[in-house]
Parts: sequence; C-alpha cells; structure tokens
Amino acid sequence: MSKGVTAKSEDYGRWYTDVITKAQLADYGPVKGTMVIRPYGFSLWESVKSAFDNRFKATGHVNAYFPLFIPKSFLSKEAEHVAGFAKECAVVTHHRLMANPDGDGLVVDPESALEEEVVVRPTSETVIWAMYKKWIQSYRDLPLLINQWVNVVRWEMRTRLFLRTTEFLWQEGHTAHATAEEAEEEAKKILEIYREVAEDVMAIPVFTGLKTDAEKFAGAEHTYCIEAMMSDCRALQAGTSHNLGQNFAKAFDVTFQTEDNREEHVYATSWGVSTRLIGAIAMVHGDDKGLRLPPRIAPHQVVVVPIGKNAEDVNSVLEYLTGTLEAVKAEGIRCYVDDRDGVTPGFKFNEWEMKGVPVRLEVGSRDMEQNVVTLVRRDSGEKVSVPKDKLGEEILRLLDEIQKSLYNQAKTFRDEHTLTVESYDEFKSIIEEKSGFVKCGWDGDPKTEAAIQEETKATIRCIPFEQQVDDLSCVYSGKPAKYQVVFGKAY
Amino acid sequence: MSKGVTAKSEDYGRWYTDVITKAQLADYGPVKGTMVIRPYGFSLWESVKSAFDNRFKATGHVNAYFPLFIPKSFLSKEAEHVAGFAKECAVVTHHRLMANPDGDGLVVDPESALEEEVVVRPTSETVIWAMYKKWIQSYRDLPLLINQWVNVVRWEMRTRLFLRTTEFLWQEGHTAHATAEEAEEEAKKILEIYREVAEDVMAIPVFTGLKTDAEKFAGAEHTYCIEAMMSDCRALQAGTSHNLGQNFAKAFDVTFQTEDNREEHVYATSWGVSTRLIGAIAMVHGDDKGLRLPPRIAPHQVVVVPIGKNAEDVNSVLEYLTGTLEAVKAEGIRCYVDDRDGVTPGFKFNEWEMKGVPVRLEVGSRDMEQNVVTLVRRDSGEKVSVPKDKLGEEILRLLDEIQKSLYNQAKTFRDEHTLTVESYDEFKSIIEEKSGFVKCGWDGDPKTEAAIQEETKATIRCIPFEQQVDDLSCVYSGKPAKYQVVFGKAY
Repeated sequence: MSKGVTAKSEDYGRWYTDVITKAQLADYGPVKGTMVIRPYGFSLWESVKSAFDNRFKATGHVNAYFPLFIPKSFLSKEAEHVAGFAKECAVVTHHRLMANPDGDGLVVDPESALEEEVVVRPTSETVIWAMYKKWIQSYRDLPLLINQWVNVVRWEMRTRLFLRTTEFLWQEGHTAHATAEEAEEEAKKILEIYREVAEDVMAIPVFTGLKTDAEKFAGAEHTYCIEAMMSDCRALQAGTSHNLGQNFAKAFDVTFQTEDNREEHVYATSWGVSTRLIGAIAMVHGDDKGLRLPPRIAPHQVVVVPIGKNAEDVNSVLEYLTGTLEAVKAEGIRCYVDDRDGVTPGFKFNEWEMKGVPVRLEVGSRDMEQNVVTLVRRDSGEKVSVPKDKLGEEILRLLDEIQKSLYNQAKTFRDEHTLTVESYDEFKSIIEEKSGFVKCGWDGDPKTEAAIQEETKATIRCIPFEQQVDDLSCVYSGKPAKYQVVFGKAY
Repeated sequence: MSKGVTAKSEDYGRWYTDVITKAQLADYGPVKGTMVIRPYGFSLWESVKSAFDNRFKATGHVNAYFPLFIPKSFLSKEAEHVAGFAKECAVVTHHRLMANPDGDGLVVDPESALEEEVVVRPTSETVIWAMYKKWIQSYRDLPLLINQWVNVVRWEMRTRLFLRTTEFLWQEGHTAHATAEEAEEEAKKILEIYREVAEDVMAIPVFTGLKTDAEKFAGAEHTYCIEAMMSDCRALQAGTSHNLGQNFAKAFDVTFQTEDNREEHVYATSWGVSTRLIGAIAMVHGDDKGLRLPPRIAPHQVVVVPIGKNAEDVNSVLEYLTGTLEAVKAEGIRCYVDDRDGVTPGFKFNEWEMKGVPVRLEVGSRDMEQNVVTLVRRDSGEKVSVPKDKLGEEILRLLDEIQKSLYNQAKTFRDEHTLTVESYDEFKSIIEEKSGFVKCGWDGDPKTEAAIQEETKATIRCIPFEQQVDDLSCVYSGKPAKYQVVFGKAY
C-alpha cells in the first residue's frame, strides 16, 4: 500500500487518479484508453449493479444478450445516430493473424479481410432493433422490456479511469411499446429508478430533468437525465433515459398489428448507466485520506483490526471476538478481518481508510479488559466504545447513520454550490471560478446555448422538471425565459 | 409460438436448432456467426452463472474486469498460445467511419488506422499476466484468485447456436500461486466445482479427467476437463481447468520474492465454462416436445395454466388460487401464471412443454369443486391431483424428484452408451454407428491418437482419474496400454 494521495486542494485530477489507483479500484490496461477494474472496484460495481438489476426486474424487465459486433451498415440507418457514433468506433476489418514474413512477431493476414467490416458496439439500438423486427408482429408481443449488462466501446483519445475510457461496462435497456404514452411513462419510470439508486444507495444527490436538444442522445426524441455534482463542483451525467419515439422503429421498419387491426410503428425507449458511477462515488464522497464508501455498497462494511505487536496478540483478539463476529455476520453485515501478520495496525488503518470502509472495529488489550470493542467511523473519524454484546445492533445503527450522513454532506455541498443568478456577469464569475452550478433563465434558443458554451465551456446540464419561469429573463439574451435551467462544466 | 420441432430421430441437428429457437433461448445475430441470447435463455444462463459464482466466491475467488482489447504483440509472447489463437481472432485496425465519398453509407476512414492493431480477446491470459506483472511482487501478494465473466471472440466459420459461435459468454478464472503444488490443487479444486454444478445443478453427468497433450489448452502444462455425453451420443467438452505451470509467468516475466528471499516465477492456473453449457442442457435433457429443464435452473419451476373458455373462467381460477400461490412463492418456488386471454389452454400446454417448465399446474372447474389442483410433470408426463393446502410441500417434493430423475435418466443413457472394447474393429463399429463413447487402452503415443482420429474422427475426450491398466493393451497398436481413455466424437 503506497502512502497517501495528492491533496484535493492541490490538484483535483491527481487526487482522483491517486484515490482510484491506490484504493485499487482500477488500473490502466495495456492498450491506450483501456482500464482494468480490479477486484475491489468490481465488487463495488457488483453492488451497484444488483441495486439496479433488482429494481429493473421488479418492474417487469428481463435481461438478454445481443452481439458485440454490428454490421457497419447498421450505424447509418438512423441519421442522427450515425453522426453521434461513427466518429469514435472500433472497426474490425480482419479475422486472422499470421507470422510476420519479414521478421518477428505477428501481422494481420491480408487474406482474412472481412467482406463487410463490423463495428464493436458503441451502444446497441441498431442491432437490437434489427432483432425486434423479427420478434414483434402484434400488440400481443408488446411491451418488450429488455435490458443487457455489457461492455461497449467508444474510441476515446483522452482517458480518465471510470469517467472516460475506450471500453466501459454498462447496462442498456431497450423497450418497445404500443403507444407513445407508454414509452414516455417507461422513460420516466426508469429515470426514477436511477434517481432512487443514486440517492438512496450511492448517497449521491442528483438533479433530474430533461436534456436540451443539443445535449440529447443521437436518435432520441428527448433524453431525461440524472446529473450529479462532484466535489470539484463539476457536473457528471450519471444516467440517461431516452424516449426514442418511432425513430428506430422507422429506421428498421418495425411495425405491429394494433388491437383494432391497424399496422403501426412501434414506440421505443433506451436507457443506461455505466461504470462511470464508480468514479462518481469516489469524487462525491472521497477525501484526502481516500475513499469514503456508502455502507449500502461497500464491499466490506466493517473491517476488524486487532491491535497488538505480534501474532499472539492478534490471536488473542480473534479469540476474544469468537462468536461475536459470527453474530455480526448473521445480521447480514459484511465484515472483513484483517489478520495479516508483519503489518502494523497503523498501516492497516491507513489502508482501510484509503479503501473507504465505513466502520473500523479495533480491539486492543484495554478493550478486552473492559469487554468492549472500539468502533471508528470513516466518514467523521468519530470513535465509540461499544459493549461486545451490543455490537450487531450498534454497527447497524452506525451504518445507517453513515449512509445518511454521506448523503446529507453531499447534498449540502451541492446546494451551497448551486446559485441562482440573473446577470451574465454573475454567471461567468461563478463558472470561471469553477465554484458550482448556475441556475438561470434560458430563452430556449440553441444559439444562446451554443454562445454561452463557446464563451464559458459551461453546458446546460438539465432542464429541471419543476419550472417557474414567470418574470424570468434569459441570462444571456435578456429575452423572456422559456425555461429555468442548470448550467455547469461537465466531465 | 410455432408448432412442434423436428423429431430427434429424424434429424438431430435440426431438432436441436428447432428447440433452441422455438423455446426462445437464442436467435441468430445479424453478423454471421453471432448469436442473440434471448431473455428465456439468458435467465437460464443467470441461474447457471450464479451457481458457479457462489461456489467461486465461497472458495476465496473474487471477480474483476480486464479489457476486451489486447495488443497484437501479446498473443505472440507464449509460443503455443499464439499457434492456438492467432488463426481465428477478430482484429481491430481502425477507429473511425466516415461518409462514403463515392456513394451511400459509411466506409472506414483510412486516416484512422491504429498504430498497433488490437485483437478482441479470444481468452485473457496474456492481458491478465501483463497486469499481474505490475501487481505481484512478494509472496504476500499470493495467491491471487481472480475470475471474470465476459464475452470472448473466436472467429468461427461454422455456427451452431450456443455450441460454436464467433462470440460467446464465459467465465475465465486466472490464478497466481507461490508453488507448483498450490497451482495443481487449485486446478483440481475448480474441476470439482465444475463437476458439482454440472451434476448437481444442471443434472448432467460428466466424466472428469485429464486431456491428452494434443487436446490440452494452448499454453498449459496440462488440462483437466469435464466431458458430457449429449443425447446423440456425441461428446461435449463442458468445462476445462488448466495448470499453466510457469509458462505465462515466464512469457510475461512475472516473478515474486519468496518468504526466504529468493526470486521465483509465479505458478498459474486458468479455467473456464461458457454459454455452451446452455446447449448441453438442451441436448442432454430435451425430447421431441422441446426442452426439459432441471428445476434448480429453470427460470419458471411451475407454470399455472387456468383451464376455461374465457376471461371469466380464468379469473375464477385465479381467485380460487388467491393466497395459495403467494404461499407457494413464499417457499422460494419460482412460479409463473399464464393468464393470457385469447389463447387456448392446449396452446399454452404446448408452449410451456417446449420451454421445458418442470411442473405445470392446471386448475379447472372439477379441481375447484374438489378443492384440489392438478400437477403435471414435464419429465414424465405424469399427472397428480393435490389438495390445495398441501401444494407447497408437494411441489417441492416433485421438483426434487424431477431433478434426480433427469440426472438418473442422463446417467443411465450415458453409461449404456459407454462401452469398453478391446479390439479396434469393435472400436470402429461403435464410433461409425455413432452409438457412444468407447473406453479402451491407449499406448500414450500421440501418433496412435492422431492415426485413430484421422481414420475415425474420434478423439480422446479424457484420461479418467481412476486408472486400471494392468494387462490392458492399446486398442490400436496392441502395445501395453499406458492409460485407459475415453474416446468419442465431439462437438
């Protein structure tokens, strides 16, 4: 375990990379732009994944698997979609390597060129709608509520672990409906699941709302989103849910027979969250000691560190805890015992603080004399001494408190850094000082949006659902505002 | 739901494809050689996956995620490995498409050529050992017991759903150890997990043993396997566990400091099972009505079909079952109610028989008068009438019986079609008539193995762990046998 991380205040970018790598969440892969998700980071993803997956299944969705490879021609079927993805996709052109005839190593066998090149999926609308054309004939086949958990590839030149990598993991839901209303309802239902998991499970407060046309998904009628503020005051798009209207159904000619025997194009949604959420967890909750993990997703909720100088001390602590730890685990508490030999307790403290384990359970000789254990909160550093026979209930109470406390801290931070402004000067000074989100009026004109972005690099993160625009003017043009929107600089 | 499937006896290959597609386990993808795993098939895979994953985790393994893309040069680092995989791999050469300057659609942008082409992983030893080099320094870092559940690609010209596709899903475990003994123990421990899940969960009896050098994994010291017999008497390699010795550690120069301060190369294993297991489930248990699913992995263990002519009848059945079904579900029984309107009970019977649901629960007016329900077993067709208040326990008993019965049927079939022979004429007649596996002596000479394969297409499926070779002669050369082996024609 390497020591410490760069201070947040010194260099936020380096702080982030230090935390991700030193907490062993992820590492750089050998191909530029790729990432390895290490076991500790993957365990976090497994928790997040199951929080979503349970909710998808409880609302009638099923999982499936569609192919990684998409015919090149499919990408061009939906006009906006091609513009959105063709510029950054990995293209497979050959299917064989051979020994280099002119030297060492391997070269691509030129005789193995594919008849039609295939694209590694950047997202799966096209291949899925090609299949839906086969599967959907009648209103009886609808709704079709399919999700998949897969890897996707978007060729990125700049890499930031979890936030921007050539390959990432995500879920993508793709649903087909008989009416426009049902599709709209689905897109919003999913957004609510996204909000719930972000806030209640990951302890990340989010703004929910609509994307502007400039920011929506390539091929969507409109895009809903959850937007979070990182601890450097920048915005992270944490999940999107798209109402695709009939765009993909028309592009792939997917029609169905209605109950009253008409032929109509199907209505669609798609929606996704990805491993970038792991980056968000680090950025929202982390501090200069490393991660601080919300208990509901922490791979280990409690780490036991025996205090002592040698293996004998450690053994006597473990003996002291016999039965007690079993009882704690029986309460469903994820508890890990760090009984490593040859490593000091202080070293272990640092390591588990770096890894963000919510509660540290220390036991030393004094604790044993008094028949207690010491619990230390990762979020606040607070220590409490707890009778051994009350351990389970006390840990459950603490975990609950830590979960709430992390959410409240993040929410307070975000709300303090979300300022409502009326003048463009105010707007610019906040954005330039990177001190948060700006709430203001917008005239609804894409040109205004583009001009502001050009000058400040800030984008409209979302148009919140709740709107009060009476008497509100556009912060840039001075015209009557069509919407109150949230601006920010985004990852 | 289309009617029926080709009879097994008429055309086994067509029977198989009919079952897979009509039970909606899978469908063909748009790119040649690719497959779509449909929700019903994927749910089966989720059950199989969690049976393995729980056992991996219980034995100290953790999940991670390594990149899809591997530098081309990595494949050539381990000499045997390159020979095994370079000939069938998807190669990414470009990262951008552009509008066709000479017409419609998209073409590969020639200016987006990659400096070094990357290969889509056919298996991940190379990329994982490149990372292990960074992560392993000392004996304290060992053992490293990492698994991943991912997609892999091997460019195949012939496709057979689940059994042979360009892309498939699998798990690949990759472990690193301080000693040769530990690696050997790990490879065997995993094989035992594979055997247990195959036999106890999927109800598929398997032979366990060693692969010959000709059949082992490219880069392994030796390969252990589980081998199953399909209902056409052909063999399916259902899982392999490799002791890699120090081959990959040497290829990637991964050394560690031993407890007594020496520098040594790490010992390794790798092991995998894939979605081809879903094909095995269909082939081992299926009949001319479709799938027969073992209860432990069936997405629905019980399907409720109300008997009646109209929606009113269906509603009165559902009312009759109110409370009862909740109690059944509370027992952990996966129960699905088919309350579709406008579809006859007979149509539903056929559909759920095709999908292999272990128990059908029928309720008609006579059942309601007598306060009973009718249960129909998919494996045997047997019907029993059960008092409503005993339903939960009776279903649990039936599911248990069906699970055992499917295993026993498969085991009896396999054992009846595994014949011990002493003469090569006997050997050939069995293999030529495709009537099963042959157990016989082998002199251990790869030339003998090759000659037999050349003439009969049969390969040595495994060298069973238990060996009795006293007085045994090689079936081909007549020389003293080194091993008793199992021959068969394989998928």
